[in-house]
Amino acid sequence: MTAAQIAAVVAAQRPIASSLFDALRRDGLDEPGVSRDPYGAGEQRAHVTVAQTARSLGLEISADDAANLYMTLPGRDRGAKSIIVGSHLDSVPHGGNFDGAAGVVAGLVAVAALRQLGITLACDLTVMGIRAEESIWFQVSYIGSRGALGTLPDGALDVRRIDTQRTLAEHIADCGGKPDRLRAGARHLDPARLRAYLELHIEQAPSLVEASKPIAICTGIPGNFRYTDAHIEGSNDHVGLPRRFRRDAAMAGAEFAVSLDQLWAEYDAKGIPMACTIGRFHTDPAQHGLTIVPGAFHFSLDVRAYDAAVLAELDAKVDAIIVSIEQRRGVRFHRGPKARAAVGPVDPTIRQALTDGAVALGIPALELGSPASHDAAAFAAVGVPMGMIFVRNENGSHNPHEAMTIDDFLAGAALLTWWIATSAAGTLDLKGV
Amino acid sequence: MTAAQIAAVVAAQRPIASSLFDALRRDGLDEPGVSRDPYGAGEQRAHVTVAQTARSLGLEISADDAANLYMTLPGRDRGAKSIIVGSHLDSVPHGGNFDGAAGVVAGLVAVAALRQLGITLACDLTVMGIRAEESIWFQVSYIGSRGALGTLPDGALDVRRIDTQRTLAEHIADCGGKPDRLRAGARHLDPARLRAYLELHIEQAPSLVEASKPIAICTGIPGNFRYTDAHIEGSNDHVGLPRRFRRDAAMAGAEFAVSLDQLWAEYDAKGIPMACTIGRFHTDPAQHGLTIVPGAFHFSLDVRAYDAAVLAELDAKVDAIIVSIEQRRGVRFHRGPKARAAVGPVDPTIRQALTDGAVALGIPALELGSPASHDAAAFAAVGVPMGMIFVRNENGSHNPHEAMTIDDFLAGAALLTWWIATSAAGTLDLKGV
Repeated sequence: MTAAQIAAVVAAQRPIASSLFDALRRDGLDEPGVSRDPYGAGEQRAHVTVAQTARSLGLEISADDAANLYMTLPGRDRGAKSIIVGSHLDSVPHGGNFDGAAGVVAGLVAVAALRQLGITLACDLTVMGIRAEESIWFQVSYIGSRGALGTLPDGALDVRRIDTQRTLAEHIADCGGKPDRLRAGARHLDPARLRAYLELHIEQAPSLVEASKPIAICTGIPGNFRYTDAHIEGSNDHVGLPRRFRRDAAMAGAEFAVSLDQLWAEYDAKGIPMACTIGRFHTDPAQHGLTIVPGAFHFSLDVRAYDAAVLAELDAKVDAIIVSIEQRRGVRFHRGPKARAAVGPVDPTIRQALTDGAVALGIPALELGSPASHDAAAFAAVGVPMGMIFVRNENGSHNPHEAMTIDDFLAGAALLTWWIATSAAGTLDLKGV
Repeated sequence: MTAAQIAAVVAAQRPIASSLFDALRRDGLDEPGVSRDPYGAGEQRAHVTVAQTARSLGLEISADDAANLYMTLPGRDRGAKSIIVGSHLDSVPHGGNFDGAAGVVAGLVAVAALRQLGITLACDLTVMGIRAEESIWFQVSYIGSRGALGTLPDGALDVRRIDTQRTLAEHIADCGGKPDRLRAGARHLDPARLRAYLELHIEQAPSLVEASKPIAICTGIPGNFRYTDAHIEGSNDHVGLPRRFRRDAAMAGAEFAVSLDQLWAEYDAKGIPMACTIGRFHTDPAQHGLTIVPGAFHFSLDVRAYDAAVLAELDAKVDAIIVSIEQRRGVRFHRGPKARAAVGPVDPTIRQALTDGAVALGIPALELGSPASHDAAAFAAVGVPMGMIFVRNENGSHNPHEAMTIDDFLAGAALLTWWIATSAAGTLDLKGV
């Protein structure tokens, strides 16, 4: 069997991919874009649709206490370390159809191609539909994958979804999960029993468009620290108050944002990848007005980097910026809850194999640090060898204008299938590869 | 009659002042603070209370098409140019009890003192209770005074109050005014028939506290330009988008605010008084989130200065800052409606007389550019000789924590009374002053 044969058979799965994406779009439609709310109706419909396709492909279907979906192609040795490929099935509100779902569809396309190629795997291959990856809803990252791995942070089950104000535990129970078992520390996936976790995902920045390449091979997933609900306390005052008397919370917030932006520009200039995002950044609607100096200012902050030492350095610099602004502007920062996610290293063997595969398949591929966080980082954090494939996407993610072509998607799926069919040769019966 | 006699008689009016302030506080109570909503129930109750006191002092009561309240002590020559003293009776939402009302109470205290002193004025003295000065409600400044003077800006009657969403015309009609007559350009006050307009007001900054003086004599009222409802258009993007691709509307807003703050610091250093306030400053709650680069940012802006040329210079500098940010950050500023108020010059003769009066009365007085805008500026704009007296106030204005003492207030009222009894001697029969 040649790389060209694998590519041709994967390309022939186009109807499965297209019809599944169409069904997922219909299920999640919430103009503009799609909303697959985690542990809610939107995500639930996606799970039902994906499970139907998996059933039609003859896969075994199961779920865990966090209500993640497992669709397994049995291998010859059911006791051997297994391979998971997958991604999440939720989306941001009014997001695009591909962010997350593409990784699950790619897993099912790979299974369909492997069957058509007549390949029987030596170990189980599980396509995983992961719950609740988008942290905008619960302000907690990697809920489904960390739920499966038993690494949910303390208190996560008690946080409330920002729209429903119901707890994560309540939402999990709604979807057939067992939050009490999660609370007791149960885990469904034992890292020692996993050979690898592979995830295909649309790129969430236009680097591939800029480079004119259809796919990228991930070099690492950033870790982050986050203030999900911070505010600055100043003094509400009259518009006529001279500058020397003001304790303007919004101006303090503006200086904070500009200081972080300058920090980012400096790191960019030094070639050290990082990002910082202040997604919520606002005066208090109950108080603000044309002629009032703002006495309260609210913000969220996400700072990410690919190196734990860089992240620690940035954390200290953010603290120093806050202290400086507090001293000069007579305001007080209340940071609120702080969340962290560890840097997610890519397994070097998997990365090299994916690079070789792209060459064998004749697919131009970029090496790219993941712009975003992914469930793959949760697997890497517990020692599971991890790799990711990104697919070109013109208009960014977390918005309705994602633009992944099926051609690019099938190129990524071909590489995923090639990897399963070759790089894991030690546990696979490749029948003549 | 000596200055000391005037001061003693004004001091004896303390019960009138205290009981009137107490009644106004009860009428407007809306914890925290008071809300005297313009052309609404809060302001209306204040008008009823003030008119009752005026009636008990024997004043003539009338109203104009804008529903301003006139309480007139008849002079000997009813055809002579008259004097107006007063201020506004509305407040910001959850504001303090003294902002505005103190000027009306001071007028009534002066009337009571003049009567007790046995002074009959040669011309009419009108205490004016002005409507709707606080621009937070309708985003239009000096509504009552400009309504009386026939200088309301085009379209003002059609703007909507931010809370009720009903038009100014509807609100004026609610309170017995005649919006159709205002629309036709009617004016109640002819500037040529006015000898002077004097206004006592609490200081809206702590300069008097800093200087340890009870009162200040106004040297000028700032003009301003305002963007009441501006926004920045960028692009909503994923948290992982590299810096070079971002069109972050909130970061553009932050840079705008910091640039204006730096501009202000430079003017402060040069000793040129100005102020700039960004009272509303916020991402879009329907879109913002922890992991979304903000694609929209909203703000209001008030820039003020005491010199028309400085104001024009600042206007041009704000434009240049906007153009620079648009070019560098790939965003677009939508300025929305622009409002302006002219600089309000103080009449030099009145200012000198007030300075002399403070010396005669032994009251330490600061010379102070008004931190805020006042109805007095609307009178100055049509050529009426204008002066203002500020009273010390520890905690700023437009908040429930205003802290004016009755002693300081009576010092200001004594100067107001002294000015009426002496500086306007040409038209007054002072019976032995």
